Amino acid sequence: MSEAYVHGYHPRENERLQDQAGTLVELLHSDTSYPPGSVVLEAGCGVGAQTVTLAQRSPRARFTSVDVSADSVAEAKRRADAAGLTNVQFQQADIFALPFAAESFDHVFVCFVLEHLSRPVEALAILNGLLRPGGTMTVIEGDYGSTYFHPDSSAAHKAIQCLVELQRLAGGNALIGRQLYPLMVEAGLEAVHVSPRMVYVDSSRPDLVDGVTRKTFTAMIEGVRESAIEAGITDPEAFDAGIRDLHRTTAADGVFCYTFFKGVGEKRRRA
Amino acid sequence: MSEAYVHGYHPRENERLQDQAGTLVELLHSDTSYPPGSVVLEAGCGVGAQTVTLAQRSPRARFTSVDVSADSVAEAKRRADAAGLTNVQFQQADIFALPFAAESFDHVFVCFVLEHLSRPVEALAILNGLLRPGGTMTVIEGDYGSTYFHPDSSAAHKAIQCLVELQRLAGGNALIGRQLYPLMVEAGLEAVHVSPRMVYVDSSRPDLVDGVTRKTFTAMIEGVRESAIEAGITDPEAFDAGIRDLHRTTAADGVFCYTFFKGVGEKRRRA
Repeated sequence: MSEAYVHGYHPRENERLQDQAGTLVELLHSDTSYPPGSVVLEAGCGVGAQTVTLAQRSPRARFTSVDVSADSVAEAKRRADAAGLTNVQFQQADIFALPFAAESFDHVFVCFVLEHLSRPVEALAILNGLLRPGGTMTVIEGDYGSTYFHPDSSAAHKAIQCLVELQRLAGGNALIGRQLYPLMVEAGLEAVHVSPRMVYVDSSRPDLVDGVTRKTFTAMIEGVRESAIEAGITDPEAFDAGIRDLHRTTAADGVFCYTFFKGVGEKRRRA
Repeated sequence: MSEAYVHGYHPRENERLQDQAGTLVELLHSDTSYPPGSVVLEAGCGVGAQTVTLAQRSPRARFTSVDVSADSVAEAKRRADAAGLTNVQFQQADIFALPFAAESFDHVFVCFVLEHLSRPVEALAILNGLLRPGGTMTVIEGDYGSTYFHPDSSAAHKAIQCLVELQRLAGGNALIGRQLYPLMVEAGLEAVHVSPRMVYVDSSRPDLVDGVTRKTFTAMIEGVRESAIEAGITDPEAFDAGIRDLHRTTAADGVFCYTFFKGVGEKRRRA
């Protein structure tokens, strides 16, 4: 894959990604299941945060889950074993150089991967080539520009912008969620349908306050503190003020909003 | 009501509000209907854009629809008559001085009103006083800060900010949607539940491109052009560049997102 990551590799990040999958799993995955016998590629499985959900929801489909990082693949395999999964095989592989035959998968699943890539359309086109005609591609991405909250705070928006900027410097795009439709169409997919998955959090939903606002989103932004300061994008005082204001949105009168996007498209059928 | 309006009074605005109700009606109203015999107050009916939908969806409830503007009330009545409604009575009245007895309504409905008020909690508390114990209050508001799109454009965001700033100068709050939960709780409502109603528009949904992005949202921003220039918030070149970029989001590869918020709360029951 040869792409720099802004997040996803450190142990505390792994924990965060797992929290994220636990809290948001229904929102993101409830409408994805694959029929018995179907052969599915999960491209960019990372540490397996989505793999366990995916494979458990389609127990009679067979999954191949790949990631560019051998360490991540090892951790993903450990998790799949711990969950007792028997329908997933793991493999280290680069999305831009996948060792699979053309049209060898019934379905492809890609989650939280495109945001890290400088050539997302090329990646989707390669994956499209691995799909049999009529097979489906499912893509899920977040969008940091979809974030807003109460009380509003320019310091908090600037802290979020640090992650967006670091992602951009690393060749990625933290605002990619909103672009799924044009990206998937440009990659050659047909019948593309994108649906937003908005997370709305107020204090009547304490599980989301803790699981989404605090432990997923704010933790994710906090995670880029040192990198953003080192890169000269912010300074400690400004950044910490933004983090304080993000935590402020978890108070009894606070509100937090974030949106994921899920796109499903189809591989062109033969004429 | 004694509050200045940024939009809602001019004939072209009326048309826009009607377009909005036509396109977004299911999104906003599909889960609101009142039982036969119930007595409902619509506070701030404007020109009746929501009244017809509301009354048609609950044909055996009895509505009283009020607005501070006698002209708007006359227009709303004309529309209700044209639609053949027999279950609505209209009345000119100020939300802050309503001529109704305490606890005289089973339900209250408030749509696109709080954004114009400098004292939204006080208005909600007054309306809460008109509800019988166990009655419900339904509130719908937009939030201009929920707007994002592809291609992204700072010029477009600045044009949107003109409306936000004009609304603020007039004593209102164009970012009020996200605040419904804390506002309704502060006003004394119980069991408050807020749900976001996100409008996602890409070119696979041409009705929404035309009905929402072009004729509702961009038209609304365009509508404040002269006021914003007069107020010195923008200049013609900058504003028109923003409008061009909003129109750009209606192209084949464009995407547009906006979110309404709907809150439902209950009047405290007697101990």
